[in-house]
Amino acid sequence: MLEKLKKEVCEANKELPRRKLVIFTWGNVSGIDRERGLFVIKPSGVDYNILKPEDMVVVDLNGKIVEGNLRPSSDTATHLELYRAFPEIGGIVHTHSTWGTVWAQARRCIPSYGTTHSDYFYGDIPCTRDLTPDEMEEGYEKNTGVAVVEAFKDINPMHVPGVLCANHGPFTWGKDVNDAIHRAVVLEKVAKMAYYTEQVNNRVEKIQQSLMDKHFLRKHGSDAYYGQNFNDRQ
Amino acid sequence: MLEKLKKEVCEANKELPRRKLVIFTWGNVSGIDRERGLFVIKPSGVDYNILKPEDMVVVDLNGKIVEGNLRPSSDTATHLELYRAFPEIGGIVHTHSTWGTVWAQARRCIPSYGTTHSDYFYGDIPCTRDLTPDEMEEGYEKNTGVAVVEAFKDINPMHVPGVLCANHGPFTWGKDVNDAIHRAVVLEKVAKMAYYTEQVNNRVEKIQQSLMDKHFLRKHGSDAYYGQNFNDRQ
Amino acid sequence: MLEKLKKEVCEANKELPRRKLVIFTWGNVSGIDRERGLFVIKPSGVDYNILKPEDMVVVDLNGKIVEGNLRPSSDTATHLELYRAFPEIGGIVHTHSTWGTVWAQARRCIPSYGTTHSDYFYGDIPCTRDLTPDEMEEGYEKNTGVAVVEAFKDINPMHVPGVLCANHGPFTWGKDVNDAIHRAVVLEKVAKMAYYTEQVNNRVEKIQQSLMDKHFLRKHGSDAYYGQNFNDRQ
Amino acid sequence: MLEKLKKEVCEANKELPRRKLVIFTWGNVSGIDRERGLFVIKPSGVDYNILKPEDMVVVDLNGKIVEGNLRPSSDTATHLELYRAFPEIGGIVHTHSTWGTVWAQARRCIPSYGTTHSDYFYGDIPCTRDLTPDEMEEGYEKNTGVAVVEAFKDINPMHVPGVLCANHGPFTWGKDVNDAIHRAVVLEKVAKMAYYTEQVNNRVEKIQQSLMDKHFLRKHGSDAYYGQNFNDRQ
Repeated sequence: MLEKLKKEVCEANKELPRRKLVIFTWGNVSGIDRERGLFVIKPSGVDYNILKPEDMVVVDLNGKIVEGNLRPSSDTATHLELYRAFPEIGGIVHTHSTWGTVWAQARRCIPSYGTTHSDYFYGDIPCTRDLTPDEMEEGYEKNTGVAVVEAFKDINPMHVPGVLCANHGPFTWGKDVNDAIHRAVVLEKVAKMAYYTEQVNNRVEKIQQSLMDKHFLRKHGSDAYYGQNFNDRQ
Repeated sequence: MLEKLKKEVCEANKELPRRKLVIFTWGNVSGIDRERGLFVIKPSGVDYNILKPEDMVVVDLNGKIVEGNLRPSSDTATHLELYRAFPEIGGIVHTHSTWGTVWAQARRCIPSYGTTHSDYFYGDIPCTRDLTPDEMEEGYEKNTGVAVVEAFKDINPMHVPGVLCANHGPFTWGKDVNDAIHRAVVLEKVAKMAYYTEQVNNRVEKIQQSLMDKHFLRKHGSDAYYGQNFNDRQ
Repeated sequence: MLEKLKKEVCEANKELPRRKLVIFTWGNVSGIDRERGLFVIKPSGVDYNILKPEDMVVVDLNGKIVEGNLRPSSDTATHLELYRAFPEIGGIVHTHSTWGTVWAQARRCIPSYGTTHSDYFYGDIPCTRDLTPDEMEEGYEKNTGVAVVEAFKDINPMHVPGVLCANHGPFTWGKDVNDAIHRAVVLEKVAKMAYYTEQVNNRVEKIQQSLMDKHFLRKHGSDAYYGQNFNDRQ
Repeated sequence: MLEKLKKEVCEANKELPRRKLVIFTWGNVSGIDRERGLFVIKPSGVDYNILKPEDMVVVDLNGKIVEGNLRPSSDTATHLELYRAFPEIGGIVHTHSTWGTVWAQARRCIPSYGTTHSDYFYGDIPCTRDLTPDEMEEGYEKNTGVAVVEAFKDINPMHVPGVLCANHGPFTWGKDVNDAIHRAVVLEKVAKMAYYTEQVNNRVEKIQQSLMDKHFLRKHGSDAYYGQNFNDRQ
């Protein structure tokens, strides 16, 4: 079942080390079939090099494994929460990429300092609150997702398609797995540039609102004029 | 028309990811035929890997598209302003290269701290002023070019062949596209070294004028003695 | 003798430059056969490219060379101390990898700021004390090992499988050579991220204990649920 | 003439971009035949990719070109001063490598913070004084060499085989060209690690003298015991 999606998800997982977002098994990608209400995710701890489409695990929106011989990613319950809370997203990427992880460990949102950030993220990239020891005990991975959803109480997840989980690392998403990977690469880049921007000028201010609007809206939405097709894109 | 120039501009665009100046579609190169008053530029949002000479767009100095099936780079109006204001330049490169973008986001000129900088840029690399919301509304990309030209009111653009657009990223130029690419690589390198120079010594001063003169003039102008041909070169 | 172990140790040494942990001959790997009480180590100053299994040197737990035509690594006496003091370890890696060496030169333990660190190291990675001039004179390499063992007086070396030797560089270990290499890569990565974490937030605090417990214990020990096999792993 | 040396010098020059010490034509290597009193150096501004042994220029110790169709490196007069002042050196490398240049631009000596530095450089790597405008006018490249020699008034150039030219970049040397290249790579590495060491611990102190002695002397001189041959080596 879901052979095409399994292939896409498998390939997207293999893209993580190629994009230098992960070493070893430090990341996972999932993609969802919204009509069937099933998502496909990487198996836990399996090397990207040997990953095959048939190794992918199929999970329903109650967290039940529907197909697959291997255990799904230990972060599956987090993916599940996001798919349930954000109905427009079709793919999710989690990594321990260096710069995203650095900001997550520093427990700071990534401020928007430039047009590169604004081309993809319409505002700061938020960082989640701490989980309580009880929440960790009760369901660490699920409550990680709950904390992400809380952080987006007043943010449209399609306008800011990524988050930092405090002390852990980034998640990104998009309309499909390729979109989610694309944003994972961008988050890593803007996280790096934001750090050095603050170092080069320790009194730097965020990008002005009108410039942020200009760049986000020339690429996204009905008035977009970047690229060759005139709807939402990067 | 302009088949040779299209080939050069196409090839120069493909050089951007090879030189690690861009990821995705984060940059564009153009080149001009001064006799005909036409310039050739990358189409918007097209991947460098699949770019072909016939995809290039030909634009006149009024900004009119003269040839091409694809939309030109969204930054075309900026290139146009530069070609109009700086008659000696033959090629322009724009990227979101990491270090150039960092300084642009920090809204600081890149100070000249050494002979590497002075071999190519005869003084600090300026950073443009903010655009007003009105200027963005009226013509964001055109007014980006206007702000660059303003920044060069008292600077010879052939002596300082590059600029930082505030909160955005660098533009570089030269007598042709290869020259412009060459300076884009150098700007990235000297931007990086300038940052670390300030970190290693937070009371560092700029290079002394006589040493800057020595290095710029041993490579450029009538008394140059670097390399094998005795006129302007890198 | 020990042909299989020699092959493994040889291959693990060759992995050091591939993983960008060393340049030139700046590192060495050894592996032990606990039943026979013999360990196999890289010869001193030999390039990784030309290293062959038969070049490996076999040493007993009194430090006596049992087999081999070449001089063993100059750090052999340090490896010996570790094998004697930590009976559970089966392989040791020493490098001058950039970030491990930076923290060693800074003479600071690497604090645990995130889950990446906690997935492998259950607490800070300690830095050894200075050796006295007398200790250096008497047996520099041996006493380097003595100082490591001292640093683990109250730490389980299987919970924190690495150390920084002050002003020198990191050692890591594990149940076998591959495990030791794996941790050498991780130490380098978490050392780098810890540095930038402190830079991004100069009031950053260490990871909370409950989150550290969660991550270390979901990967290690009897209740581990990461990966496909349910005992100690990365 | 000097065909073997030309080949070595040519190959050493080509090693510079492979070792990521230079981009474009930002560096040069020379080697000397002490018996004949002639040195061989890279031609100015020629790309490493197309460099051939027969392009090398032969210069005598009065600075006269003895053989070669191309202009020698613009830094030839600096090499000449070093060969005249330091009779034990057989090869010289100059680059604008990032970290060496950063420290040179910061106008600071590179302090020895660890054993990696001490394995090759027996003490801090000095930075030259400023040249006066008169010295630049009279003979910039020659006086650059004079300033290097001054910086070694109280330092044995075989114990500290490298220097930073203020605002410019590093020179390294050794008994032959390979030795000089080797030290250029090491200088770059220790310059980088010294910077981060200061950042990780802003009250860091230099390596203790006894540890510096231990490491330098276990690799160099009559009591060396590192590697497989028991005299001066890296």
